[in-house]
Amino acid sequence: MNRTMTDPFLPPQRLLLGPGPSPVAPEVLAALALPTIGHLDPAFIRLMDELKSMLQTVFDTTNDATFTVAGPGSVGMDACVLNLVEPGDKILVARNGVFGMRMTEVASRGGAQVVPVDVEWGKPVDPAAVDAALAADKDIKFVAFVHSETSTGVLSPAKEICAVAARHGAMVIMDAVTSLGGVPVHIDEWGVDAVYSGTQKCLSCPPGLSPVSFSPRAVEHIKNRKTKVLSWFLDVTQVMAYWTGAGARAYHHTAPINSLYGFHEALRRLLNEGLEASFARHRAAHLRLVDGMAKLGISFLVDEAYRLPQLNTVRIPEGINDAQVRSSLLHDYNIEIGAGLGPLAGKVWRIGLMGEGARSEHVDRLLRDLGLAIAAQRQMAPA
Amino acid sequence: MNRTMTDPFLPPQRLLLGPGPSPVAPEVLAALALPTIGHLDPAFIRLMDELKSMLQTVFDTTNDATFTVAGPGSVGMDACVLNLVEPGDKILVARNGVFGMRMTEVASRGGAQVVPVDVEWGKPVDPAAVDAALAADKDIKFVAFVHSETSTGVLSPAKEICAVAARHGAMVIMDAVTSLGGVPVHIDEWGVDAVYSGTQKCLSCPPGLSPVSFSPRAVEHIKNRKTKVLSWFLDVTQVMAYWTGAGARAYHHTAPINSLYGFHEALRRLLNEGLEASFARHRAAHLRLVDGMAKLGISFLVDEAYRLPQLNTVRIPEGINDAQVRSSLLHDYNIEIGAGLGPLAGKVWRIGLMGEGARSEHVDRLLRDLGLAIAAQRQMAPA
Repeated sequence: MNRTMTDPFLPPQRLLLGPGPSPVAPEVLAALALPTIGHLDPAFIRLMDELKSMLQTVFDTTNDATFTVAGPGSVGMDACVLNLVEPGDKILVARNGVFGMRMTEVASRGGAQVVPVDVEWGKPVDPAAVDAALAADKDIKFVAFVHSETSTGVLSPAKEICAVAARHGAMVIMDAVTSLGGVPVHIDEWGVDAVYSGTQKCLSCPPGLSPVSFSPRAVEHIKNRKTKVLSWFLDVTQVMAYWTGAGARAYHHTAPINSLYGFHEALRRLLNEGLEASFARHRAAHLRLVDGMAKLGISFLVDEAYRLPQLNTVRIPEGINDAQVRSSLLHDYNIEIGAGLGPLAGKVWRIGLMGEGARSEHVDRLLRDLGLAIAAQRQMAPA
Repeated sequence: MNRTMTDPFLPPQRLLLGPGPSPVAPEVLAALALPTIGHLDPAFIRLMDELKSMLQTVFDTTNDATFTVAGPGSVGMDACVLNLVEPGDKILVARNGVFGMRMTEVASRGGAQVVPVDVEWGKPVDPAAVDAALAADKDIKFVAFVHSETSTGVLSPAKEICAVAARHGAMVIMDAVTSLGGVPVHIDEWGVDAVYSGTQKCLSCPPGLSPVSFSPRAVEHIKNRKTKVLSWFLDVTQVMAYWTGAGARAYHHTAPINSLYGFHEALRRLLNEGLEASFARHRAAHLRLVDGMAKLGISFLVDEAYRLPQLNTVRIPEGINDAQVRSSLLHDYNIEIGAGLGPLAGKVWRIGLMGEGARSEHVDRLLRDLGLAIAAQRQMAPA
């Protein structure tokens, strides 16, 4: 009794080329295993300060309210939306994939009135459509959009969308989950008021943390809310007392110590490489994939002009069984790629070249093994 | 530009005898560093199934809705309260410390009407007082209480409180953050409808995850809510599609893969030791501490009858500077103990003997070094 026969868990060694998590460097894995210390230990406070400073560099912001929410990207979405929006507020949500839809869900659960601006999946958000919607309804206080749609592989024009919002006096909430580290992100220059990301994409850290940043205007707005933030855990005014300030830090929650060790190391690696170098590496890996896919006769869903280098949606060739190829890649070749979501299910594969995944050797291995998996399937069921 | 001078973070090696996090076994740390795989990988689904089964054993429940929330204990509190309670609902919250107070805050942000039953800090919740409050107000739907108050070191009579709630037809929400693995917890036998815990106490895993369990009655109640759960991320009906069921798991959020490797290993270790053996080990370490503290002339805040073995609040001796002793323990001896909270600040120390911390060698080291730190301070400022 009270005994279990469960063996230690030994994961297989996968090459992670799906929509996340991405491959994690051995140095980051090693950092996770460093001895746990307390969340109020002066040594840990130093780590938090360094982490915050690195995050500010990665977000390209001087926002004091820059920190890491102790939950995955979905919690970051909750944190940004539920801190800014009060019941009854009108929020415009631009939707061109799964995560725009999810923002609608999050905002309406928070009591907001959502004004959707829908775009065909596979296309970017159109700043003119946002402009028109804001012009048509002067009560809209917030504009929310996804910078890099992980479900489709589309990059939306953040700078232009933010400029439109600014012209109408609306605050901006941006999803940068798949952006950060893979394509340029400039929070201050663009004028983003609240942004969230995830660690498990181009930052090449295990999932479970959500870096966020709030502009001084957003913090002021939150301080002046008429109603309390619906979640005590996510209330930025409370979390700030733990994450920022020169004096003693107030206990809010017990921080995920070891996960933050890993994230510190992942950010350190990224900044030592340099952001521009990281963007260039993602771009080079993407171009190599484009080249190789053309040779396999596989086309891309998204137009070149707004294609994400780190998340590639490619059309499944005619007559090829989606699930069988993905299963063969996983079980025969230890490579993970992603399935299509929503209207794209069964039509596309999602190939992530994110963080440590964005390297030529990984692209070459995928191209070779995908070619083999497809050929094997064609042989078994000849046309 | 884009370069940082931040060095790799190397934490000191602390003996964690505060209110959490507790010491983590090398095997658990090693598990954190295993290679990351995808959150929909069949191998990872197997890990989730094993983890769920182990959690059911630890909670002593057959609840199908038993899983791990991807955030620290505070998120578990949000998950339990915000899933069960709808705006306008009346909830009785028994408060005898910080975490009862926090439940009030969480419930009222969720729109509930809180009926508090206050108890002096350092005393257990009185089932008769709960009974009287329920008798006085037939509209109360929920009873919430903290089984093991981490702020005071008090164990409340869970079985009796649950029996009172059952008599009045109220559902029970229980905080088992500091209980699980350290003292007996019997979710089904007691009739708890929603329970949350944390990994960083008697389960000896790094912080960042919150194991939870919901009774079939609670799940039914959640399914029949008139309003949606305020947080999309925490909505149990959504999370269940990822954590349970025999068929394909629906993507909800990206699970914190490596943290769950660590938790799997921590649960495995606990169940291999056996729950009863773990409780006995906590009890033995506590008695050794009681004995040693008596020799140092230091008394306990909490009466023996409801003292938690894993969280010991001891009175700071007359004339001794709280902060100086804790600082000396941390910096000179690498031992972390906790400060008092709220009305107990400056009056008590909180000594956690949780999980791997509950071992005689750690108790002996603390007693020796605490004695030295106190003696050093007395020498510097003689009476």
